[in-house]
Amino acid sequence: MKTPFPFSAIVGQEQMKRAMILTAIDPGIGGVLVFGDRGTGKSTAVRALAALLPPISVVRGCPVNSSDPADCPDWAHASETDLVERPTPVVDLPLGVTEDRVTGALDIERALTRGEKAFEPGLLARANRGYLYIDEVNLLEDHIVDLLLDVAQSGLNAVEREGLSIRHDARFVLVGSGNPEEGELRPQLLDRFGLSVEVTSPDTIDERIEVIRRRTAFENETDHFLARWQAEDATLRESILAARAALSNTETPDNILRDCAQLSMTLGADGLRGELTLLRAARAYAAFSSAEQITRDHLRSIAPIALSHRLRRDPLDEAGSVARVSRAVVDVLG
Amino acid sequence: MKTPFPFSAIVGQEQMKRAMILTAIDPGIGGVLVFGDRGTGKSTAVRALAALLPPISVVRGCPVNSSDPADCPDWAHASETDLVERPTPVVDLPLGVTEDRVTGALDIERALTRGEKAFEPGLLARANRGYLYIDEVNLLEDHIVDLLLDVAQSGLNAVEREGLSIRHDARFVLVGSGNPEEGELRPQLLDRFGLSVEVTSPDTIDERIEVIRRRTAFENETDHFLARWQAEDATLRESILAARAALSNTETPDNILRDCAQLSMTLGADGLRGELTLLRAARAYAAFSSAEQITRDHLRSIAPIALSHRLRRDPLDEAGSVARVSRAVVDVLG
Amino acid sequence: MKTPFPFSAIVGQEQMKRAMILTAIDPGIGGVLVFGDRGTGKSTAVRALAALLPPISVVRGCPVNSSDPADCPDWAHASETDLVERPTPVVDLPLGVTEDRVTGALDIERALTRGEKAFEPGLLARANRGYLYIDEVNLLEDHIVDLLLDVAQSGLNAVEREGLSIRHDARFVLVGSGNPEEGELRPQLLDRFGLSVEVTSPDTIDERIEVIRRRTAFENETDHFLARWQAEDATLRESILAARAALSNTETPDNILRDCAQLSMTLGADGLRGELTLLRAARAYAAFSSAEQITRDHLRSIAPIALSHRLRRDPLDEAGSVARVSRAVVDVLG
Amino acid sequence: MKTPFPFSAIVGQEQMKRAMILTAIDPGIGGVLVFGDRGTGKSTAVRALAALLPPISVVRGCPVNSSDPADCPDWAHASETDLVERPTPVVDLPLGVTEDRVTGALDIERALTRGEKAFEPGLLARANRGYLYIDEVNLLEDHIVDLLLDVAQSGLNAVEREGLSIRHDARFVLVGSGNPEEGELRPQLLDRFGLSVEVTSPDTIDERIEVIRRRTAFENETDHFLARWQAEDATLRESILAARAALSNTETPDNILRDCAQLSMTLGADGLRGELTLLRAARAYAAFSSAEQITRDHLRSIAPIALSHRLRRDPLDEAGSVARVSRAVVDVLG
Amino acid sequence: MKTPFPFSAIVGQEQMKRAMILTAIDPGIGGVLVFGDRGTGKSTAVRALAALLPPISVVRGCPVNSSDPADCPDWAHASETDLVERPTPVVDLPLGVTEDRVTGALDIERALTRGEKAFEPGLLARANRGYLYIDEVNLLEDHIVDLLLDVAQSGLNAVEREGLSIRHDARFVLVGSGNPEEGELRPQLLDRFGLSVEVTSPDTIDERIEVIRRRTAFENETDHFLARWQAEDATLRESILAARAALSNTETPDNILRDCAQLSMTLGADGLRGELTLLRAARAYAAFSSAEQITRDHLRSIAPIALSHRLRRDPLDEAGSVARVSRAVVDVLG
Amino acid sequence: MKTPFPFSAIVGQEQMKRAMILTAIDPGIGGVLVFGDRGTGKSTAVRALAALLPPISVVRGCPVNSSDPADCPDWAHASETDLVERPTPVVDLPLGVTEDRVTGALDIERALTRGEKAFEPGLLARANRGYLYIDEVNLLEDHIVDLLLDVAQSGLNAVEREGLSIRHDARFVLVGSGNPEEGELRPQLLDRFGLSVEVTSPDTIDERIEVIRRRTAFENETDHFLARWQAEDATLRESILAARAALSNTETPDNILRDCAQLSMTLGADGLRGELTLLRAARAYAAFSSAEQITRDHLRSIAPIALSHRLRRDPLDEAGSVARVSRAVVDVLG
Repeated sequence: MKTPFPFSAIVGQEQMKRAMILTAIDPGIGGVLVFGDRGTGKSTAVRALAALLPPISVVRGCPVNSSDPADCPDWAHASETDLVERPTPVVDLPLGVTEDRVTGALDIERALTRGEKAFEPGLLARANRGYLYIDEVNLLEDHIVDLLLDVAQSGLNAVEREGLSIRHDARFVLVGSGNPEEGELRPQLLDRFGLSVEVTSPDTIDERIEVIRRRTAFENETDHFLARWQAEDATLRESILAARAALSNTETPDNILRDCAQLSMTLGADGLRGELTLLRAARAYAAFSSAEQITRDHLRSIAPIALSHRLRRDPLDEAGSVARVSRAVVDVLG
Repeated sequence: MKTPFPFSAIVGQEQMKRAMILTAIDPGIGGVLVFGDRGTGKSTAVRALAALLPPISVVRGCPVNSSDPADCPDWAHASETDLVERPTPVVDLPLGVTEDRVTGALDIERALTRGEKAFEPGLLARANRGYLYIDEVNLLEDHIVDLLLDVAQSGLNAVEREGLSIRHDARFVLVGSGNPEEGELRPQLLDRFGLSVEVTSPDTIDERIEVIRRRTAFENETDHFLARWQAEDATLRESILAARAALSNTETPDNILRDCAQLSMTLGADGLRGELTLLRAARAYAAFSSAEQITRDHLRSIAPIALSHRLRRDPLDEAGSVARVSRAVVDVLG
Repeated sequence: MKTPFPFSAIVGQEQMKRAMILTAIDPGIGGVLVFGDRGTGKSTAVRALAALLPPISVVRGCPVNSSDPADCPDWAHASETDLVERPTPVVDLPLGVTEDRVTGALDIERALTRGEKAFEPGLLARANRGYLYIDEVNLLEDHIVDLLLDVAQSGLNAVEREGLSIRHDARFVLVGSGNPEEGELRPQLLDRFGLSVEVTSPDTIDERIEVIRRRTAFENETDHFLARWQAEDATLRESILAARAALSNTETPDNILRDCAQLSMTLGADGLRGELTLLRAARAYAAFSSAEQITRDHLRSIAPIALSHRLRRDPLDEAGSVARVSRAVVDVLG
Repeated sequence: MKTPFPFSAIVGQEQMKRAMILTAIDPGIGGVLVFGDRGTGKSTAVRALAALLPPISVVRGCPVNSSDPADCPDWAHASETDLVERPTPVVDLPLGVTEDRVTGALDIERALTRGEKAFEPGLLARANRGYLYIDEVNLLEDHIVDLLLDVAQSGLNAVEREGLSIRHDARFVLVGSGNPEEGELRPQLLDRFGLSVEVTSPDTIDERIEVIRRRTAFENETDHFLARWQAEDATLRESILAARAALSNTETPDNILRDCAQLSMTLGADGLRGELTLLRAARAYAAFSSAEQITRDHLRSIAPIALSHRLRRDPLDEAGSVARVSRAVVDVLG
Repeated sequence: MKTPFPFSAIVGQEQMKRAMILTAIDPGIGGVLVFGDRGTGKSTAVRALAALLPPISVVRGCPVNSSDPADCPDWAHASETDLVERPTPVVDLPLGVTEDRVTGALDIERALTRGEKAFEPGLLARANRGYLYIDEVNLLEDHIVDLLLDVAQSGLNAVEREGLSIRHDARFVLVGSGNPEEGELRPQLLDRFGLSVEVTSPDTIDERIEVIRRRTAFENETDHFLARWQAEDATLRESILAARAALSNTETPDNILRDCAQLSMTLGADGLRGELTLLRAARAYAAFSSAEQITRDHLRSIAPIALSHRLRRDPLDEAGSVARVSRAVVDVLG
Repeated sequence: MKTPFPFSAIVGQEQMKRAMILTAIDPGIGGVLVFGDRGTGKSTAVRALAALLPPISVVRGCPVNSSDPADCPDWAHASETDLVERPTPVVDLPLGVTEDRVTGALDIERALTRGEKAFEPGLLARANRGYLYIDEVNLLEDHIVDLLLDVAQSGLNAVEREGLSIRHDARFVLVGSGNPEEGELRPQLLDRFGLSVEVTSPDTIDERIEVIRRRTAFENETDHFLARWQAEDATLRESILAARAALSNTETPDNILRDCAQLSMTLGADGLRGELTLLRAARAYAAFSSAEQITRDHLRSIAPIALSHRLRRDPLDEAGSVARVSRAVVDVLG
């Protein structure tokens, strides 16, 4: 378990950081899909965010990290009830993972040695209340991606296999990284991620030098480096917690509702996931901004990351999807 | 088990709602195939309908939800006979489900530990007397679709595998969602669904706003929202139960028989499933409309959803299949 | 086990009904291949025919439905000898069936629990003395079709697998339905079916109405409907039994032999299965017609169903194969 | 075990009958490949020939049909030594046969129940001293064909699998039927069959009538029919036995040796299998003809069936391979 | 275990030798990818380098070669604590290796015989603190390459399979050989190797003769040959150890940081791995050169092997990637 | 175990015989690849050569044929130490052989019955100190060929599978036959065979007659034939043994070293395997010729079989590879 890099010390990548912060405020926004080159710190950012968040309270030995013994599934045969603190979990989905390790499966050892049909929890159990990170989500088989999105959306892992019929909590934020040059996700899958951002290598030499400098400092003088960024991380943590608390009191004016619907219609996004996510993420952003209600400014900031992955390809419009969203924002919101 | 959305609160989507209501009145009409974009509330509608229906009475512990202990298969080794009430079951077919979990299979645990060849019931058993929902039916392997349609039609699940030879009731309504852009179903499979409807995202801004408003209210003020729609759901439930009761007394005039046959012939639909389903669904619709006999108006309403998925592609007629059905309705029924 | 539809009440489809009746008189004619659209009642007709035939006498518990305990294979470990009556079996070959369920296989349960290598009979055993129905035979894998045709022809199921070496009676009539639009059978397989017929949806409105009327009556007033057709079914049953008895006494004049050979040569059918089947089916038809010997009229009626599936494709002759057979009948028989 | 058709009663097909008779005289000639349509009686001919031959003497219970207990492999655990007579075995290779059933394999039952690694003999053991018939050899996987040819040539089945290392006699004549329209054998495999013949349906009406007449008589009046052909079969059997005895005394003049080599060179056949087989088959034919030495007439008769399947395709010579052999015979032998 | 060839006696191949030496000084530089023909001594060089390095101290029986009993994983059940010396391990990845042998897997023997779920360490455990050599890395499946690169980078092997959840140290240098003519690595994989070099057969006759002479001497007069090169190997070993010690004190002037960033930007390399690796390898090279700080000369030497495998293909620039790096070096560094 | 044909009695095929003899003198030359038609006696030649060589002394029961009990691996649990004589082993690689039978694998029987993880040696163990023959090496899967070449080169079989980690001697000469018309070996594999020869059917009629005559004599008068060739085989055996003894004293003049390097460079052969093998095979040939040192004549004889399979395809030079080698020999050696 290496010390994570401080979230505040990440150079640039503002949109990626904003998208991740929003999911920390309201995990119901759904997963984040990060497009871009390898080596741009996607995995680092997820770990950094999770390390920034306050630890969670969990029943000792509870396989799904619950804070209430009643929520620890009985198949866990856990008899302990005292609470311990743990960091927010970040689970990596290894390449080539099989469905049974994701969802959990029959515990072969107990089946063989004791003739019992017991459940061996999988990565989804371990990710409950945290983050599940998939590197190169476009290389995963579709049915696994679909499964992950299903569970992420419902918060429930339902296992029907080998005679087992198990259900357990699995609330987590899915963060997927993808490289569009390596094969695309089906539009159906794209649509089910809440937000999408693009990341690129820094394009000014000073920014690049700053990245090298910070990484070198982090590797060579770790303690000193962590100390230097501790305060900024703490400030950000407080803002996130404050936004969580304010979320339910953040108001949605009627014209904002209409703006959301109009934006989606103008862009011709399929279904209604676009406007529902836009609204939800804008509310989290308003709360993070300490605003009392959502404003058009919040929509302007959030629309690109909430809508650009839901557009149909338009053969008559060669603009990229982010540009098309920006244009629609100007048309609709002024 | 999340609280389902009230069926009455679903905005628009009249044809989909009508088709589902008809199968609640007469499950013998067969499955419903819902074409359209993701995010248009297909899964929500199935759950909502099942929640609207009155609970069913089942023998406690009966794996096929029967109300009569004699109908609980002896392989269930259930010794209880008292009845309990349960909601109408809705079973989701998970992506990548294997045939053995659908039909049931050898209970490996008992085989290994007790040397007995016992049956472990599958999803078909659990769906008895309810609904089986398949998201993206076009992504399922053909032989699973075929199997589901066979069982849905015969009401009987026959398992021949691993030395087991089991039969049990499996009466359910199959609801499949499909996205025609992702690969088509074979005509043979299409033909075996009773009804088909197309759903689209709402196309007026007010309707879209209404959807967002209701979903937001449902999520944020659930109890208040459910209370508001309770009365409308109750009225609809009464209408369905009344229609069920009236069904056998609803008459079929001879000219209606002739109209059904003529419509099918005019459209060149293969086989006779078209007119048989049209007649049956029209009868359910007449009963739902409190009519004493089927009229041409009922046929007009039902023909598009009963026939449009049974047409052969006609290279000389570029009209969509729904338009061709409407034209034939005008030609035949005036 | 639903009540089968009365065979006599099937509207139209004369050729299909005739072909099936002939195999009931002389199962040695071989299987029947029924081409045509789904929904034209092929499966209904097989079940109806089997239900029409008198029950068979079988040793209780005999896995191959034999009437003589000596014919019940010793691997069945059946000790009973009393006879019971059972309906003529109709076995459906489920889609996706595996070879081991067709032929029978090692009984895994006994192998595991008692360390014995026992045989678990398959669908071929159950079909002995009855019908084996394959829906969409063109979707089955070739090696399964080949296997079924081999067994149907030899009347013997020989199993060589997993260290088992079993032989048991498997005399049955294979009825396969096929849809030529979905992929063709190899000529080698076609040739091994005895008879072939094409079925189509009824093409007059009155016939279609009659079909709907009868099916609706069968479903809604089952007892009354069955009673109405009982007499016609009984008459047909008697005719079949009489024809079976007369079969060996029906004579084959020399000129009829020559006609058979000439017809096959004129049509350029490969091998000699064409004329051998034509002769055999014509003899059954003569017996069914209470004729004392085969006449050219019998050949005229039978040639299309015995020969049309054995023609080589002729690039210079665009007529369908049935038309080519009819033309040859006129040329040869006048 | 149905009564086989009498070999002498087979109408026409002289080349196929001659090739089979030669392998009965000298099995070292190698396998026979029979090209042609289904329904031309290939399988019937093999069974008929085997039934014609005198029974063989075998040690009771010996899995490889040996006449000497010392040749019964010790893995057979056979303790009996008395001899019994059995018909010459004819083993059918079922379609889809797996390599383990061909060669034999680990006896799973004994491995599981007694913890012993015992050998379960396969079809090659059963075929020892007889015939192995493969219908549609071109549909078998290449590696199985190769394996069969290897064993047929060496007379020895060597099994290296699952920790077994077994060797047993497997001397048999391989008879394969092939349909050149269905996919060709690789030249390497073709070359390893000793002889090849083409069969076609009879092309005169009288011959066809005679076939039908005999088959009908065989089926309807079996005993009478068998009695009628008994004498002819007996005569043929005596001729074969006499030829076997005379074989080693039949001389090969030097000019015949030269003719064989010249024929092969003229035809450009690869390798030396062509002339070696031609010589061997001609010797058997001379012995069958009661000649004291091989003559050019014998070569003329045998060259087409020994050489025509070994020619390379010649793009400048459109004549079929049989015609090319005949031309070479004229050129070389006059 | 054959005696390795002395590293110093390798003729030519300076870049390959330098790259390997640098990874011996700072394994954090990452893996080395060696492009070129077979037979150019790649495998020999890895073995030679490992044999040159001083032996490592390991706890007896520790499966991951640790020098501290606390680092020997408890699943090893090792109770010994005394230290033994072992050569630096070189592990070959056999062709067709399966993932379970790479990562380790469930110990089937203990699972079967004792019902325990124990871990059987794999090749990654054995490679800890040494080298892992992959011949023809481009023939490995992508997911194995990815896995190896992941572990090489993190120094940690995490196994999630068969109910095991194991973590152990796996710090090693990955050396892969590739033949670009046989299929390319995906750019994503290329980028994750630290350094890349090209090797070719020697192109002067004298160099070739020298190679033959030394190999012949090594094979025929091994002891004499080893003695002759011992001193040169010892000198090199001392230089490597000295460079390791000096590494942390080698300074990085600010202009060198800027040069690294400028070089990567000029070349348009994706992400930041290019400049980070360039800096790290240059520092090792400076230490090896006994310099107190990194200079532009060090960058000039290292840039080609640190950057040339990270360039995007440029359709307008036909120069090879090494030439493009050299040009950029001139542009940026003068 | 049939008596092998005498090596000396093989008609023609001088290059193949020479290549095989050289590997008998110095197995370190590496494998021999024999290109050509089937039926040209490749397999016969290998068996004949092995039978010609003197028997080897082996510890009784030693699975790797060692003459020293210390070299018999302890997994063999062999307790015997007395020596027995055995013929030089010739192991055939059966078509479709699996990797576990080649390398050896877990002994399933002992694992199941005694719970021990024991090693079951494979074909590589049995081939130690002898020949491994692969018919149609181009039909083997690449990874098996690669594995065989690796082991042949290192003389060591290393097994890493199923929790086993075994090493044992496996020194053998690999002889592969290939038919270039059936699919080519990858250049990487070609390069790893030491020598290559082409064989063709004899092209004079007298030679063909001689082949037939000898084969017929061998089959019909075996003892007499063997006796006739015994002396020639004995002479050849003595020459081989004498050459083995002289090998280490055969000198390599410097100009010969230079010639080898020059030949390889002129031909543009990749890597250095070409000249190393040429030198080694020429030394064996010199010893076989009783020469005291290698001469240009020896190089002239050996260059075609040592180099022609290592050339790159040259699109501007249509000459075959043997012709190109001959031309280079003239250019370089005069």
